[in-house]
Amino acid sequence: MPNEIPQRPDFFARHRLLLDQAVAATSSRDYWTPYPESPSTKVYGDDAPKNGETAFRDRIGNHFELPGHPGNGVVPATETSPYGFPLDITYPRVRPDEAVAAAKAATGPWRDAGPDTRAGVAAEILARLNAASFEIAHAVQHTTGQAFVMAFQAGGPHAQDRGLEAVAYAWAEQKRHPSAARWSKPQRKGGPLELDKKFTPVGRGVALLIACNTFPTWNGYPGLFASLATGNPVVVKPHPGAVLPLAITVLIAREVLTEAGFDPNVVILAAESPEDRTASVYALHQDVRIIDFTGSTEFGDWLETNARQAAVYTEKAGLNTVVLDSTDDYRGLLGNLAFSLSLFSGQMCTTPQNLLIPRDGIATDQGTKSADDFATDLGAALDRLLSDPVRAAGTLGAIVNGGVRERLEEAAGVGRTVRVSTSVEHPEHPDAVVRTPLVALLDAEADRGTYTREWFGPVTFVISTESTKRSLEIFRETVREHGALTAAVHSTSAEVLAAAELASLDAGVHLSENLTGGVFVNQSAAFSDFHGSAANPAASATLSDPAFVTGRFATLQSRRPVPAEESAHA
Amino acid sequence: MPNEIPQRPDFFARHRLLLDQAVAATSSRDYWTPYPESPSTKVYGDDAPKNGETAFRDRIGNHFELPGHPGNGVVPATETSPYGFPLDITYPRVRPDEAVAAAKAATGPWRDAGPDTRAGVAAEILARLNAASFEIAHAVQHTTGQAFVMAFQAGGPHAQDRGLEAVAYAWAEQKRHPSAARWSKPQRKGGPLELDKKFTPVGRGVALLIACNTFPTWNGYPGLFASLATGNPVVVKPHPGAVLPLAITVLIAREVLTEAGFDPNVVILAAESPEDRTASVYALHQDVRIIDFTGSTEFGDWLETNARQAAVYTEKAGLNTVVLDSTDDYRGLLGNLAFSLSLFSGQMCTTPQNLLIPRDGIATDQGTKSADDFATDLGAALDRLLSDPVRAAGTLGAIVNGGVRERLEEAAGVGRTVRVSTSVEHPEHPDAVVRTPLVALLDAEADRGTYTREWFGPVTFVISTESTKRSLEIFRETVREHGALTAAVHSTSAEVLAAAELASLDAGVHLSENLTGGVFVNQSAAFSDFHGSAANPAASATLSDPAFVTGRFATLQSRRPVPAEESAHA
Repeated sequence: MPNEIPQRPDFFARHRLLLDQAVAATSSRDYWTPYPESPSTKVYGDDAPKNGETAFRDRIGNHFELPGHPGNGVVPATETSPYGFPLDITYPRVRPDEAVAAAKAATGPWRDAGPDTRAGVAAEILARLNAASFEIAHAVQHTTGQAFVMAFQAGGPHAQDRGLEAVAYAWAEQKRHPSAARWSKPQRKGGPLELDKKFTPVGRGVALLIACNTFPTWNGYPGLFASLATGNPVVVKPHPGAVLPLAITVLIAREVLTEAGFDPNVVILAAESPEDRTASVYALHQDVRIIDFTGSTEFGDWLETNARQAAVYTEKAGLNTVVLDSTDDYRGLLGNLAFSLSLFSGQMCTTPQNLLIPRDGIATDQGTKSADDFATDLGAALDRLLSDPVRAAGTLGAIVNGGVRERLEEAAGVGRTVRVSTSVEHPEHPDAVVRTPLVALLDAEADRGTYTREWFGPVTFVISTESTKRSLEIFRETVREHGALTAAVHSTSAEVLAAAELASLDAGVHLSENLTGGVFVNQSAAFSDFHGSAANPAASATLSDPAFVTGRFATLQSRRPVPAEESAHA
Repeated sequence: MPNEIPQRPDFFARHRLLLDQAVAATSSRDYWTPYPESPSTKVYGDDAPKNGETAFRDRIGNHFELPGHPGNGVVPATETSPYGFPLDITYPRVRPDEAVAAAKAATGPWRDAGPDTRAGVAAEILARLNAASFEIAHAVQHTTGQAFVMAFQAGGPHAQDRGLEAVAYAWAEQKRHPSAARWSKPQRKGGPLELDKKFTPVGRGVALLIACNTFPTWNGYPGLFASLATGNPVVVKPHPGAVLPLAITVLIAREVLTEAGFDPNVVILAAESPEDRTASVYALHQDVRIIDFTGSTEFGDWLETNARQAAVYTEKAGLNTVVLDSTDDYRGLLGNLAFSLSLFSGQMCTTPQNLLIPRDGIATDQGTKSADDFATDLGAALDRLLSDPVRAAGTLGAIVNGGVRERLEEAAGVGRTVRVSTSVEHPEHPDAVVRTPLVALLDAEADRGTYTREWFGPVTFVISTESTKRSLEIFRETVREHGALTAAVHSTSAEVLAAAELASLDAGVHLSENLTGGVFVNQSAAFSDFHGSAANPAASATLSDPAFVTGRFATLQSRRPVPAEESAHA
C-alpha cells in the first residue's frame, strides 16, 4: 500500500446540491432559504440556546484567540453592549501592511483551487456559522443593540442567506464560461485553424471589508463571501463597536480553510482601536483591490474618490420614502408602518424616514385623513404597538451609540413634533438606552433642507405636500439626488401605483406597494429581493446580483495550437 | 374592419434565433460568426463591392446628413485619408448640452421597450451594418490607414461580431432574473405571506462612446451595443480623424430606431473639430452615466479619475510582450511574428512590442539562436515578408497620422537598430505614408526605461535577458505595472509553458502559446477570445463579458401583496 495521503474533506461534494439550489433560487426568486430563521430548539437542537449563550459569556472579559493570525500584540477592548455593560474582549493586533501582506501571500493556492472548491469551502463556512447562530445572536445583540430574536434572525440565518446568495452568484458567474474549449475555424483551403483554449477565473486581489456597527454580519457577509468565492483573500475590518460577530466569523472561516488545506490567512481580522483609524490606510494600500463598505456617505464618497486602485462597493445613507395616496386598510397601513418605524428603533438602513402625504388628506376606508390626522394616528399606532414594555423592548432593541441619541435630541427641535420619542425601561437590562420613534410634521416646500438629509435612528417625518403628484415629484427628485434603499407607496388607484412604479424606476429605487400585513418595507428576503439598486446615490452595490460579483474577478485565457495528433483534420 | 394600426417590424422575432445562437456561442467559445469575413461577391452579392465603393465616393466632398439630428450648423471637414487625399466631408454640429439633452429625452420608451425589443433592434442595426460592409470598409481604410481587406474584415464583419457579442451578453444578463415572480413564505400559523414581484432592467443613463482613430468600429461597437441593448441612449463621439465609419453607423442605427418606432436620438453623432475638444466636456456632464473610451493612457486615466458620475470602461496603452524560450519551428515562429509586427504597420493595440529573449540564446530546430541572431533573423523575415511592394502595402496599410511617424523617427535613436524602418511606395496611392517595422535590440536591465512605455506603431524591441526565468519576471512585473492587451510565449518545455501561464495569471493578461501558423497573437475572435482582461492597467474592459454589461443597468424591483382572490391560500 502506498503512503497514506491525508484526506481533505470534499466540501464541494458535500454542498453541491445546496449550491445548485441556491443558483436556481436566484433565478426563480421565490421564497427559499436553507437556514431556518426560527431560534427554536426544534430546529437547532435542545442545547443550542444554552451552548450559544455560554460560548458568548465565555468570550466576555477574555482575549479572542485566532491561531496563526499575523501581527503582534493586542487591541484593547473597544466594545460596550448597548444593553449597558462592557464586553471587555481583546483581539489580536495586526498592522495594515502585515495584514495585506499575509493575505496576499495566501492568495496563490486559493486562486488555483478554482470556483468549485472555493464555493464548497464558502458553503461549509456558512454551515458552521449557521450552527453557531445562537452565539452569533448574542454577539450581535450586545454590539448592535438589536433585540435577541432580531439579532438571531438578521445576524444569523438571514445574514447567512445573503452570504450564500453571494456565493451562488459568484460561483455561477465564474462558471459562465467553460474552463476549456477547442476553437476550429474553417479555412477556404486546407484544414481548419484549431486552437485549444483555457479560461481561468482569477481574483482581483486582496479584498477589504469595512463593516458597520448596526449590521456587522448581514451587511458584511455579501462582500466577504463574494470576494472569497471569486478567489480573493479578505481582510475583515470590523467597526470597533461591533467586532465580536465578525471575529467569530473569521475564526470559523479560518478553521474551515485550514481543514481544507488552505492558508487560514485567506481571511484576516483587522481589529483596531477607534483612534487607529486604519480603514483609510487599508483603503489606499496598492494591494487592496476590492473594498466593500457600509456606513456614512462621507466616508463612502471618500473611498469612491480616493481608493482608485480598488473596485469599491458602498452602501451609504439615503432618504427612504413612503408616498401616501389612499388606502382601503387604514388600520393595517398604520400598524404596518408603526412596526417598520419601531423595528430596531429605526436604526436600519431600510427604515422609512420621509412620509409624503397630501396636506388635505388621503382617502381611506375610515374617511379622509389629512396630513395632521395621519401624523396623529401614526403616533397613536406607535403608542399602541409600544405600550407593553416587554414587547416594546423586543421590538425596539437598544440605541447603538451616542450619535443616534444626539440626533434624536436634535430632531426634537425640528418641524412640529407630533409624537415625542420616549424612553422605555428594559425589563432585563436597566442600563439599556431604549427609545421610541419621534414623529415630526414638516412642510414639503419649507422644510426641504431638513428632510433631504438622513436622520439615522428613530426619527420619522410626516411631510405634507400639495398633492400625490407633488409627492411623487419630491420622491423622484430627492431620491435621485440623495439616494434611498427603500421606497413604498400606498394607493388604491392603479394609475397612482403605475405612476409610483415609473417614479421609482426614474429614481432608481425598489418599491413596496400597499404593505398592510406581515411584510414590512424594511425587510428584504435573500434570493428574492435585491437590497440596494446601485442606481441611486445610496448604494453602488445590491447584495447581490451579477454586477456585485463580476468586478471581483477576471477570466484569463491562454490558447495554443491543437497538437497535430489530436487534430480531427490532421 | 377597424382602422389599421401601422405595423412596426418585429425585429426581435426576426433575429431571435441569431440571438439565441450568439448567447450559446459566448458559452461554448468555439468558432462562430454570422457575418462572413470574406469580401467576396459570392457572399455579399455581385454588386456589393461596386455599390459600396460608389456610396463611399458619393460621400466625399459632401455634407453628411442625419435627418432629425439635434443641433445646428456644420462641423468643417476634419478627415484626411492616410492614403493621401482629404475626404472633405462635413457633419452636423451639436453642442454637448444639446446632444445629452436630446439623448436623455429619447430614453423613456427605449427603457420601457424591454430587453427583447432592444436586442431585436440592435441585431437589425448589425444586419444592416453587415450589408453596408463594403462602404464601411472604404470609410475605415481612408480614415485609419488599414489596407482594404483588413478594413473590410476588422472594420466590418469582425466589428459586427463584437457588437453582436455585446448584445448577446447584455440580453442574457438582463434576462438573468425573471420579469415577475410570486414569493410565498410559509408561516408557522395561518397561510403563507405572499407577494407579487416585478423586476425591470433599467439603463444607467446617457452613454458616451469616445472612439479612436485606428479602429473606430471594432473598438467602438462593443460599448455602443452594450449600452444600447441595456436601455441607454448613446452619444457617439468619433475621433476627428475617423468620423465617417461611425457616422454611417449612426445613420443606420437611427434609421432602424425610427422604423421600430423609437426616437432616433437614442443614437447621436457628436462630430467635432479637433480644437473643440468636447470629449472632456461630455465626460463631466452629470447626465452622462456610462463612458466607453479607447485611446491614450493619459486621457483614459483622466476619465477614470474625473468622470466620477459615470461607469467608465477604458482601453489604453500597454506593453504587449513575447517571451522566447525555445521552439521546434524557428522558421514558423519568425514568419508568424513578422506578420504580427507588420499587420497594419504595428498600429494595433494588440501588436507585440517587447520580445524578451535570453542573451545567450534559445534552442531551436535550427540550433541555438542568440538574442543577436534572433534580431537579425527577425529582420530578415520581415524583409522576406515585405519584399513585394503590392503584398507589403496590403499588409502594412498606411501610417495613420504624424504622431506615429514621429515616434518611429524617435525609435531610430534607441538601442541598437537591427532593422531600419523603410518606406514602401504604395502601388495605387503614391501619397500614402507606408512604413515597415523597425527592430531594435535592447538590454533588459539597462534599457528598462525605454521599453516600459508604449511605442505605438511599427516599433519592435528585441530585449536580451539573462534567462527565460528573468524574461518571465520582467514580463510579470512590466505588465502588472504598465498593462498589456496581448502576450505570447514560445517554448518546447511544458514546464516553461506552465510557468508562463502562471505569470500571465499574475500579470492579468491573456496568453498565446507557440503560434507558428495561421493564427496571430494580435487577432482575437469574438465569441471565443476575450479582448482585454480588465486585470491589468491596459484596459478596464474586455469587449465583452458579463462584467462589461452588468454595470450598464440596474434591475429594479417592485412588490405588492397578492390579491386575496388570487392567493392559493385565501
